[in-house]
Amino acid sequence: MINVIAKNFAKKAKIENVLELAKELVETTVKEDGCIKYEMYQDEKNPSILIMIEEWETMEDLNNHMSSEHFKKIVPKMNEYMDQKPELNICKKVL
Amino acid sequence: MINVIAKNFAKKAKIENVLELAKELVETTVKEDGCIKYEMYQDEKNPSILIMIEEWETMEDLNNHMSSEHFKKIVPKMNEYMDQKPELNICKKVL
Repeated sequence: MINVIAKNFAKKAKIENVLELAKELVETTVKEDGCIKYEMYQDEKNPSILIMIEEWETMEDLNNHMSSEHFKKIVPKMNEYMDQKPELNICKKVL
Repeated sequence: MINVIAKNFAKKAKIENVLELAKELVETTVKEDGCIKYEMYQDEKNPSILIMIEEWETMEDLNNHMSSEHFKKIVPKMNEYMDQKPELNICKKVL
């Protein structure tokens, strides 16, 4: 099992645009092979902080996701609305 | 529903100590009222990065947790083994 925690920092004026694109990304991604969970969380104090929490069966499934047509179409658009690079952690559950 | 994502940065030589204390914390915390999820994830490339993912029914439950005896006993000990302050995000699920 592969767990991804990706913290994104949206430009304040573009939060809604990011959420709209993320909605499209989530709807397509949850149908992919090996996708167990693909969810987005928003910080209560700083709504610019948008954290994606993902769970994949294998690293191959995650790699397939990142080279999928919808990922390559939507993620670059989202990146235009970001203030800084995301913090990406690929993890295993330990507890 | 309240979601907490807490990224911790353990000193390299103290990772095992942090995991041991976290195990004790998780075992007690999952029995608390309002605790839906309390899990720890470790970054595959940088094992010093330990991310707690929590889910609580209400903010009151989270506050009760943070003022519980076991939290006040264990967390200061864990903090001694950290390289820097944790990044704490209290979030709501948006997607």
